Amino acid sequence: MDEFELIKKYFAPLERRDNPALVRNGDDAAVIGVPQGKNITLSVDTLVEGVHFLPNASPEMVGFRAAAINLSDIAAMGAEPCYALLSLVIPNNDEEWLQNFSSGLGECLDKYNCSLIGGDTARGPLAISLTMVGSVSGYPLTRTGAKVGDSILVSGTLGDASGALGILNKAPLDAHEKFLIKRYERPLARINLSMSLLGIANSAIDVSDGLLADAGHIAAASDVGIDLLASSIPISESLSSVYGEKKALEFALSGGDDYELIYTVPNESLAEAYSIAAKEAIKLTKIGIVTDGSRLRCFSDENQDIALKTKGYKHF
Amino acid sequence: MDEFELIKKYFAPLERRDNPALVRNGDDAAVIGVPQGKNITLSVDTLVEGVHFLPNASPEMVGFRAAAINLSDIAAMGAEPCYALLSLVIPNNDEEWLQNFSSGLGECLDKYNCSLIGGDTARGPLAISLTMVGSVSGYPLTRTGAKVGDSILVSGTLGDASGALGILNKAPLDAHEKFLIKRYERPLARINLSMSLLGIANSAIDVSDGLLADAGHIAAASDVGIDLLASSIPISESLSSVYGEKKALEFALSGGDDYELIYTVPNESLAEAYSIAAKEAIKLTKIGIVTDGSRLRCFSDENQDIALKTKGYKHF
Repeated sequence: MDEFELIKKYFAPLERRDNPALVRNGDDAAVIGVPQGKNITLSVDTLVEGVHFLPNASPEMVGFRAAAINLSDIAAMGAEPCYALLSLVIPNNDEEWLQNFSSGLGECLDKYNCSLIGGDTARGPLAISLTMVGSVSGYPLTRTGAKVGDSILVSGTLGDASGALGILNKAPLDAHEKFLIKRYERPLARINLSMSLLGIANSAIDVSDGLLADAGHIAAASDVGIDLLASSIPISESLSSVYGEKKALEFALSGGDDYELIYTVPNESLAEAYSIAAKEAIKLTKIGIVTDGSRLRCFSDENQDIALKTKGYKHF
Repeated sequence: MDEFELIKKYFAPLERRDNPALVRNGDDAAVIGVPQGKNITLSVDTLVEGVHFLPNASPEMVGFRAAAINLSDIAAMGAEPCYALLSLVIPNNDEEWLQNFSSGLGECLDKYNCSLIGGDTARGPLAISLTMVGSVSGYPLTRTGAKVGDSILVSGTLGDASGALGILNKAPLDAHEKFLIKRYERPLARINLSMSLLGIANSAIDVSDGLLADAGHIAAASDVGIDLLASSIPISESLSSVYGEKKALEFALSGGDDYELIYTVPNESLAEAYSIAAKEAIKLTKIGIVTDGSRLRCFSDENQDIALKTKGYKHF
């Protein structure tokens, strides 16, 4: 099986018939049309075996997460995902691996009507790089727009996926543990929520490096301070149950694998934001405020700053 | 030096001030505006150490080629390059390597007014994946448009870069050998020529897998036959001089690293095509015709088909 057959068998079918490119998969480049007034968002994220996932990780899960992680970046811009390009470096043509990887990738892309329109395969140590293309009407959500007085809102619950990392190879699993594993293996990109909050939120970021790190990125990019209240951070019953409250809070502050979104929303739009989230059946929790300070603080109920040492994921 | 510092020092400067994105490098995704009536071309190409370049390869050369190879795909569509995203997987923070790689990458992107607007870095075995974004007015050049009776034209000379592979570690080099090495290390993407041939050529492809393989791709995609005349294939004096004529022809038929372009042009537009190439000071040579057959043939002057065994680069 050469490169062309491999692409035809496993990846060409991930181009959706209802969302084809102008020039299909298989030419020198993919070509897409852009509706008038739309801007294009572009993000790239790479997963390397042994760094971002274990060598024995389920290929379906790796495929799903590769898409979800990238889609989360599109969500953070308030954009609508439309196309993806895959660069796949594989050590050999393990057809079972390819079939399962393609299935997981397709499962996630399908959830978001996202069409795989091009890419590249090469021989080498296993690595997956996905380029995600989205479109947005007018100016997107960014990290730079937070305003003093905004409320800091976060979607869903935090720390679950970090909690999963410690029990990936455990068996059997109870219901709480299964919940955590699912949060790690099948993260959801908050696309609809973010698209609806475009024009309502002043800024957004996805929590990929951890709450403290990513809230810090908003503070730095927007040149504001951020004060968080630890006890208001949404933590799932499963995470508290498996790890206890103290450890659960640590995961929630520093874990990035849930791919939830942080938004800053001005007070006059808070009700609207909650109403939108309720319609999407997504929990949206106020966890702090934007201040005229210059740094991130996270207060315990004893009024102590527990964010002095930010513990986000360091890529290097 | 963490990921953010590394990007700031070596890659953020490759965003051109005269071609910035709408949302700059550093947010969750890059955002670009698209002029009305333009379509967007997207291509991804990955270089893996030990597969696409030697472990001792000059990082400047690797950076330059990573861009050139991708730009060649944009050229094959008749598009104008505008933006690039880089996914860089590196085993460590070798600052000298990063500086030189960034310099080579920037040198090539600058030649084509192309702005680096985003990307991703990760730890792992050295691999470089570049996503190239171009724009094209209306429908692009593709592989599928070749018409029976079209002339097959090729830019520049073929086989030089393949000839270079055998002497990469040789020293000292004579003038002919230096020419070949330069053709390998600093390939040029035929952007201007292709943009000018948009609407004139019926189809195009870049020669990345070798002349026979890539002409075969046009034949298959366009559902036509192609007859080439071996003696008309443009071969540089340097390649013939270093390797002799027989070996030089082999390189020209099967070598892909020159990144020249094949166009098919209807006869009524041939004069215009030659005139455009002359203005760009690029040699454009007729090497065959599109037939109503179904396969690729390459005739020697003794009228024998020497393409029976296509010898293009196999990715796997």
